[in-house]
Amino acid sequence: MSLDEKATKPHDRLALALSEDMAAVNALIRDRMASEHAPRIPEITAHLVEAGGKRLRPMLTLAAARIFGYEGPFHVHLAATVEFIHTATLLHDDVVDESKQRRGRPTANLLWDNKSSVLVGDYLLARAFQLMTDTNNIRVLAILANASAVISEGEVLQLSAAQDLATDEAIYLQVIRGKTAALFSAATEVGGVIAGASEAQVKALFEFGDALGVAFQMVDDLLDYGGASETIGKNVGDDFREGKITLPVIKAVAAADAEERAFWVRVIEKGKQEDGDLEQALGLMAKHGALEATKAAALEWAAKAKAALAELPAHELRDMLADLTDYVVARLR
Amino acid sequence: MSLDEKATKPHDRLALALSEDMAAVNALIRDRMASEHAPRIPEITAHLVEAGGKRLRPMLTLAAARIFGYEGPFHVHLAATVEFIHTATLLHDDVVDESKQRRGRPTANLLWDNKSSVLVGDYLLARAFQLMTDTNNIRVLAILANASAVISEGEVLQLSAAQDLATDEAIYLQVIRGKTAALFSAATEVGGVIAGASEAQVKALFEFGDALGVAFQMVDDLLDYGGASETIGKNVGDDFREGKITLPVIKAVAAADAEERAFWVRVIEKGKQEDGDLEQALGLMAKHGALEATKAAALEWAAKAKAALAELPAHELRDMLADLTDYVVARLR
Repeated sequence: MSLDEKATKPHDRLALALSEDMAAVNALIRDRMASEHAPRIPEITAHLVEAGGKRLRPMLTLAAARIFGYEGPFHVHLAATVEFIHTATLLHDDVVDESKQRRGRPTANLLWDNKSSVLVGDYLLARAFQLMTDTNNIRVLAILANASAVISEGEVLQLSAAQDLATDEAIYLQVIRGKTAALFSAATEVGGVIAGASEAQVKALFEFGDALGVAFQMVDDLLDYGGASETIGKNVGDDFREGKITLPVIKAVAAADAEERAFWVRVIEKGKQEDGDLEQALGLMAKHGALEATKAAALEWAAKAKAALAELPAHELRDMLADLTDYVVARLR
Repeated sequence: MSLDEKATKPHDRLALALSEDMAAVNALIRDRMASEHAPRIPEITAHLVEAGGKRLRPMLTLAAARIFGYEGPFHVHLAATVEFIHTATLLHDDVVDESKQRRGRPTANLLWDNKSSVLVGDYLLARAFQLMTDTNNIRVLAILANASAVISEGEVLQLSAAQDLATDEAIYLQVIRGKTAALFSAATEVGGVIAGASEAQVKALFEFGDALGVAFQMVDDLLDYGGASETIGKNVGDDFREGKITLPVIKAVAAADAEERAFWVRVIEKGKQEDGDLEQALGLMAKHGALEATKAAALEWAAKAKAALAELPAHELRDMLADLTDYVVARLR
């Protein structure tokens, strides 16, 4: 059986097609996360970077550049930049969420301490900006700096929206654009910019990344209420227990009668949860078709992502990105 | 009495000479710290930015640019960038140090929470990088990104050196270069770069900022063991109680006999402090001339800073920077 046949998942096929570039990205990441003076930095970053996330974001950058025939070295820098920003965000998120596990391993804030997580996250962000300056391209710097601002804005918004039942779909969309879609769209956009794509094509790349990111996060939020066909590294009900207002909750609350609303106020706003509340929440979601409606929204965003792809030149990697988009929502089956 | 006569402190004279530029910096800071979507962001940043720090770092950038006759708009962007990076660092520091007061006011982590401090710090960093891209100058971006990396590296190093009596003067210098001097030197360097100063002059600006930052931090560390001629917003013995290894401690430990060493191990490494320990520490420092030696080191760095200034063109602002340098160490009198 050839490697090609083994790689049946779209993500793996993409990784195979980009394997040479990804090897360069990984080498650059290892090189730049080192610190001569503070040995604790590589300890922590290695823990996180080597834990082997899916490297989805850097692959988006590489694919976007390659679709336009880019042959220069800087798509590798930008891909590493994107992964650094992502990793810094994870470190700070774990502090903010007081998480104990990520990708099946104890989080850095648990193994070391919150202080180290904050500072090493800062270090990775600074390293990300250093990497970008290597490209000598101000526009990609502006795009990624803007994405960084939108990411933290989204996280702050999520924090103030937490446990607030007034959170509506517009605020939810803003939050997930920040926490997920902003880096997806910046990742695809800078790939096109560095490769000299036209303005219309750069716009299409942005729209693809944005819509893929929104669909991705909606699926993630949906999987938190079950329906996972595979291990996703989180437990059903985590968001519920934390009082996070995600789309399934918003849709169930919007359709709630007075009694149901009192339930949501107690479990989400007041955070007073008892045994059986998750089951009760799932029952209300089923009653009002909240999970189905969330799934429909995710499928709609996936369709938008694929429509944007159609604006790009025909390319094997473009087709793989389309397959990847299908796969993201297929996790729901 | 004219304004000029009133402004007797070098810092105030500098602020007066740069008042128009500083007004533009403050306006830009207020404009860019806003967030359309997350109202908690301006609440927190206003708390910190409006608290009225001395704005020393942005003034360094403005002065450096003006000494070279810069008339463009971007020294203002760079000065605001420097203040944003500084403010982000303060927010994250307060989380790391678990501080309760800064500049005589409760810290953001106390008024809001650690989560907000982490995320709003990230937001300010991202905004800082956005501001920089406005200048369209890759070199200043590289300098400030590098400074950001050195800052967080220094903070991580300080964290792992804390309570470790093996910390020597070389490590101490690395730590304070990171926590203080890196932003001072980047602030002066980018002012010269944007103004088109020669390589030799840019180097002199870097060396001035670096030496001023080192002297500034040594004085700060010394004032923590008394000798303050004015309010410095911290209490004598804070560093001691936190087990921070600063130059006075390093010098006293280096000269300690076995009995004294046991004292330092108990109070710093083991963190077991009793009433009278601060007085005991001060006694040992006096015995070994540790405070005098620290003062001599600070004076030496101040002299280095002034020597670097001599490489710059004659200018009223250059003389003010020299006076400022004298004033920084004169706080010791």
